[in-house]
Amino acid sequence: MTGNTFGTLFRVTTWGESHGVAVGSVVDGCPAGLELSETDIQRELDRRRPGQSDLTTPRVESDSVRILSGIFQGVTTGTPISMIVFNQDADSSKYERIADLLRPGHADYTYHERYGVRDYRGGGRASARETIGRVGAGAIAKKLLRTQSVEVLGHVAELGGIKAEKTPIGEIRSNTERNPVRCADTDAAKLMHNAVIEAKEDGESLGGIVEIIAIGVPPGVGEPVFKKLSAELAAGLMSIGAVKGVEIGTGFKAASMRGSEMNDPFEIRNGEIHTMTNNAGGILGGISTGEPIITRIAVKPTPSIAKPQRTVNIKRMKETDIIIEGRHDPAIPPRIVPVAEAMVALVLADHMIQSGFIHPTRLDRKPEKERKE
Amino acid sequence: MTGNTFGTLFRVTTWGESHGVAVGSVVDGCPAGLELSETDIQRELDRRRPGQSDLTTPRVESDSVRILSGIFQGVTTGTPISMIVFNQDADSSKYERIADLLRPGHADYTYHERYGVRDYRGGGRASARETIGRVGAGAIAKKLLRTQSVEVLGHVAELGGIKAEKTPIGEIRSNTERNPVRCADTDAAKLMHNAVIEAKEDGESLGGIVEIIAIGVPPGVGEPVFKKLSAELAAGLMSIGAVKGVEIGTGFKAASMRGSEMNDPFEIRNGEIHTMTNNAGGILGGISTGEPIITRIAVKPTPSIAKPQRTVNIKRMKETDIIIEGRHDPAIPPRIVPVAEAMVALVLADHMIQSGFIHPTRLDRKPEKERKE
Amino acid sequence: MTGNTFGTLFRVTTWGESHGVAVGSVVDGCPAGLELSETDIQRELDRRRPGQSDLTTPRVESDSVRILSGIFQGVTTGTPISMIVFNQDADSSKYERIADLLRPGHADYTYHERYGVRDYRGGGRASARETIGRVGAGAIAKKLLRTQSVEVLGHVAELGGIKAEKTPIGEIRSNTERNPVRCADTDAAKLMHNAVIEAKEDGESLGGIVEIIAIGVPPGVGEPVFKKLSAELAAGLMSIGAVKGVEIGTGFKAASMRGSEMNDPFEIRNGEIHTMTNNAGGILGGISTGEPIITRIAVKPTPSIAKPQRTVNIKRMKETDIIIEGRHDPAIPPRIVPVAEAMVALVLADHMIQSGFIHPTRLDRKPEKERKE
Amino acid sequence: MTGNTFGTLFRVTTWGESHGVAVGSVVDGCPAGLELSETDIQRELDRRRPGQSDLTTPRVESDSVRILSGIFQGVTTGTPISMIVFNQDADSSKYERIADLLRPGHADYTYHERYGVRDYRGGGRASARETIGRVGAGAIAKKLLRTQSVEVLGHVAELGGIKAEKTPIGEIRSNTERNPVRCADTDAAKLMHNAVIEAKEDGESLGGIVEIIAIGVPPGVGEPVFKKLSAELAAGLMSIGAVKGVEIGTGFKAASMRGSEMNDPFEIRNGEIHTMTNNAGGILGGISTGEPIITRIAVKPTPSIAKPQRTVNIKRMKETDIIIEGRHDPAIPPRIVPVAEAMVALVLADHMIQSGFIHPTRLDRKPEKERKE
Repeated sequence: MTGNTFGTLFRVTTWGESHGVAVGSVVDGCPAGLELSETDIQRELDRRRPGQSDLTTPRVESDSVRILSGIFQGVTTGTPISMIVFNQDADSSKYERIADLLRPGHADYTYHERYGVRDYRGGGRASARETIGRVGAGAIAKKLLRTQSVEVLGHVAELGGIKAEKTPIGEIRSNTERNPVRCADTDAAKLMHNAVIEAKEDGESLGGIVEIIAIGVPPGVGEPVFKKLSAELAAGLMSIGAVKGVEIGTGFKAASMRGSEMNDPFEIRNGEIHTMTNNAGGILGGISTGEPIITRIAVKPTPSIAKPQRTVNIKRMKETDIIIEGRHDPAIPPRIVPVAEAMVALVLADHMIQSGFIHPTRLDRKPEKERKE
Repeated sequence: MTGNTFGTLFRVTTWGESHGVAVGSVVDGCPAGLELSETDIQRELDRRRPGQSDLTTPRVESDSVRILSGIFQGVTTGTPISMIVFNQDADSSKYERIADLLRPGHADYTYHERYGVRDYRGGGRASARETIGRVGAGAIAKKLLRTQSVEVLGHVAELGGIKAEKTPIGEIRSNTERNPVRCADTDAAKLMHNAVIEAKEDGESLGGIVEIIAIGVPPGVGEPVFKKLSAELAAGLMSIGAVKGVEIGTGFKAASMRGSEMNDPFEIRNGEIHTMTNNAGGILGGISTGEPIITRIAVKPTPSIAKPQRTVNIKRMKETDIIIEGRHDPAIPPRIVPVAEAMVALVLADHMIQSGFIHPTRLDRKPEKERKE
Repeated sequence: MTGNTFGTLFRVTTWGESHGVAVGSVVDGCPAGLELSETDIQRELDRRRPGQSDLTTPRVESDSVRILSGIFQGVTTGTPISMIVFNQDADSSKYERIADLLRPGHADYTYHERYGVRDYRGGGRASARETIGRVGAGAIAKKLLRTQSVEVLGHVAELGGIKAEKTPIGEIRSNTERNPVRCADTDAAKLMHNAVIEAKEDGESLGGIVEIIAIGVPPGVGEPVFKKLSAELAAGLMSIGAVKGVEIGTGFKAASMRGSEMNDPFEIRNGEIHTMTNNAGGILGGISTGEPIITRIAVKPTPSIAKPQRTVNIKRMKETDIIIEGRHDPAIPPRIVPVAEAMVALVLADHMIQSGFIHPTRLDRKPEKERKE
Repeated sequence: MTGNTFGTLFRVTTWGESHGVAVGSVVDGCPAGLELSETDIQRELDRRRPGQSDLTTPRVESDSVRILSGIFQGVTTGTPISMIVFNQDADSSKYERIADLLRPGHADYTYHERYGVRDYRGGGRASARETIGRVGAGAIAKKLLRTQSVEVLGHVAELGGIKAEKTPIGEIRSNTERNPVRCADTDAAKLMHNAVIEAKEDGESLGGIVEIIAIGVPPGVGEPVFKKLSAELAAGLMSIGAVKGVEIGTGFKAASMRGSEMNDPFEIRNGEIHTMTNNAGGILGGISTGEPIITRIAVKPTPSIAKPQRTVNIKRMKETDIIIEGRHDPAIPPRIVPVAEAMVALVLADHMIQSGFIHPTRLDRKPEKERKE
């Protein structure tokens, strides 16, 4: 399988470059009968869009999506859903000057080695604009999941070293979209906001940690062994541009815990089996337990910074300094939230179909309960 | 794709249960002409085998591998390589008693929900014995990588909260296999060893962190977007039983770094482009930079502990206590080292073929340099 | 893998409905460095386009393609190539009337059963317009193959029961595009033309046989066992709408031949191994022999005919007559030629990459000859 | 995907060489809860086994299968089912003499070109023994299909130019296994039998046509576009060693039919929609119609014949004669019947899961009827 397609039964193929004609994606495998409109997609794209606040790149893109196929009379037909967003404010002039300079922390050098040629304008395919296709597809996955009462929520848990307090789901749901850093802890949000402004003024950039929680996933979702739900979530999340780490449940903290602390004891609640704690993050043996699925990602600081950096002119094979002018976000985590949610939603939609919880072709059919009941 | 197969052009399919007849794997896509014998496989299996030291489960398994196909006159023929290891010391008696009890931290409940039936003996398919198939396949991948001067090295970086000092590659290479905890820092190794013994006596278990380093991977390996080398490594590593987190390069530390600290400047060394630092862990934009590829995994404490735990009898739908008797490793990290190495080797072998660095069918052919040279 | 994607390393995903906004495809896995322009694509689309002659549907579609991504400074960059063709002359009015009637020989009933909802306008996704995406992708595959001196040629070998005489490759190359039935035997072409006109006047439609020949494929291309070149060609060709049979080499005639007749003896010609005859059609054991690869497909008569037919109104569950008005080709084989060529080219491009004859990421690199030479 | 794996959700991976240690396969994706024993597999293997009659190779192989995993307490658990058959009567001596001679009609030359090395003993991987893995997997697919009342029946429709009369399903079911040529027309069976004996005495071999019919497949099974049921059946069947052609329904005859003859009119029978005829062979637009699915394959005469043939010694690059001694079937069609049935069953099992007619993980759950009912 080539690299621009993700998923098995619910799949997305993304395409497009930062300064090309357009970007988009094709979603294949969405069951027929799901009500879907451009508004559903646009809502999520607007969360990802540049220019939302003083914290994001000033590149002006309306990122208006058009659905080209797969919908008839307001519902999906089971055929591929093609989505397109035309690029508008691409300003390639600043890239001509540094066409032969390898931007540190970017994919310039590795694309050059892999392909021999590369579209150096705005990072080309390696640009964050590639994620428009993901977010568009994720919007469909989310709508599909909502028919099964599954909700996917992301928020910034740490930014520039500032950690948010743990907040209950309700606050994440209500607070996150109310501040430009997408932090559910409103006090921390202010500190984060200031930190970003400061970093920006300083010609610097900041990293952070984003947490994504999926609520309502029934027990039994996920393939064991190589396609564990955890493995697929890790692949999906790690495939986002700036992500350098992924953890599930307690994650790296588990490394220093003892078995009796880490293990989640089972109990019966409302006639159903549950775990008393959720250190596992909702996944055991690669399969969902029914508890919230909790993942966290480490996002590196934006590689494009205003400060001069040492690098190589690859044409002349000479060391030199580079000063990056373009327009960039000083901190990506707030804008990565909808992207990470999209990846989690894509994995879950795919696996709920694969696991028999969503009918693969028709939403008006659903798996019955056990026969013996 | 179903869940027991891993890889695109170099692929492994594993099969088998802990207390079944045998376990094994089939490797498809290994180019023809690679010298390979059972000794190559056995060496790696012996590193994974139980009963290597006082730290591992006393289950006695010689884990002798037999190659059933794909080799002719000492070399691979390009056809599938089937490997089998018969189970010997399976003692199912201890599992009959707890057949209906859900072991906390194990996959009992999730398998039950997913499949309705499950082989409860020794964890069935969710047992660590499943990794025999991975390690067997990984041994082939390693041998293939060695023809391209690529080396994959794992070691325990943290165990039970005890952190090893950072050690140079040379010491990792020479020290790791000399102590039962597989730690390159020999002082920390002793502390870790004691900690495991103590935990064991205490009826407890410990987690840890394993680092895997791949040296010699040329720049240009890895697909961008969804099949980033980082994403595939994350999937492969997270698919190992007890792993709850994966990071690349600086990983989670990147979240609190600034752009100017994180970015690795480029320089020219011996006429080749290199980065001065390697915070990226050898991967930019999902493609290898030529620097060492560095991954770390968080391993949770063994879920099987001697202490009584609260759980549910799923047949009677009643809460109860469980005491797990079987034979278990009080700390998995040392034995996970060869498994994690195998997963990294599998991803790299697959991607070096996919990226044109290893000919897909014949080892006696290799990609030429650029035509224009 | 969902059904709208084809190929392993060189892949196409098609999307779009007959009366939707647009149709298109995304090609992933084309190596970087291939010169490519919209003209290359348009040339092939024009061969497939309706309204080429008095034999094809009068629907007026310019089928102008736009490339949206994957090309920079006139060459491919290795990233996905997205192509779009907007629909223009869709006239849905004639379909409203028969929205609940199942057209015999069409996919109305089966889509209804599978999806519950369906876009009944012009056949929706099951329309021949879907093949625009294939032909666009095939144009890229053909251009890539031409860099390796591989040529793919299709022609109509039989139409409405009229069989063409066997003609040498040279005549197929020069004659086929000169007559509207795309038959290399110019005498038969006239008879076929008349037969189509007659059938049309009669409210009928005709089927035929199309032969596709690939010249220049080196020996050693194709995976054995399940991904035999023959199996992949069969899948690709049988996936075209009206195709009911596929054969390779002597095909069904082989069933009544004796071993000594069928077997192609080997000889040495110009210092190379060749077969004296080519009953095998260029494939042995699923792998190319170096001789021309010869496939033939059986194309059924167009299901849309002017004559009244018995059918069922699916809403009222009542039997009734249907008269199909729309605009249709009385014989598809001439227009299927470029589609079948596209499928053969896609399979060959994919397998030449998979078999190491085309570098997977860079056209400026190619596999060297055997090391030992 | 590498070439030794077939299927998407219900998949088989086969391995093994004719004169190696063993052959076998791994089935992944079989839902849990299917009663399955070695007897189920053995029954099908016995139909494929050599030495069944005077028409088959005298190689003596009991072909006893052992199931190594995936079954617990008599039912499948949803984990991979590994099957093994040890080779017994491999006599490699006759192959040493012709190790460097390319057998016409065999894959010797193409494997040599592809891999550089090859196991020349008994055809190695390209031997018909490879199909043991397919038949084993097919036996499981058949058993799974039977739980949905789907039956797969194969029979020889033509052998050595002798055509069987068309027979009703009942006679195919009762007669086919009663004669060594597996022909449902008992008169033709005798003529075929004699023809094979004669060809054998003459040092020759014969080809034939095998028809495979699947009864009971509900409407709505199959993916449109590239994964049409017809395309997947074509791939599966064409991937069998000696097959040179595949057709669905009227197949190649459709090429000379008119639309009004070919189209199957719809009617209502017992309150259900059916077609009055079945020229389509049970598939429209790549999706099942509910009518019997009918496929036919062209099987070439066995390439191994006793007569001397011209060929090349590849080591000395000299033309020479070859006389093949080994032990071979003078006509493969009777033994290909269970193999072709297996491939059809594998495709159908896979697609019935993909289409939501069989629950992907648990046989005790099944898709409910439309919600609105």
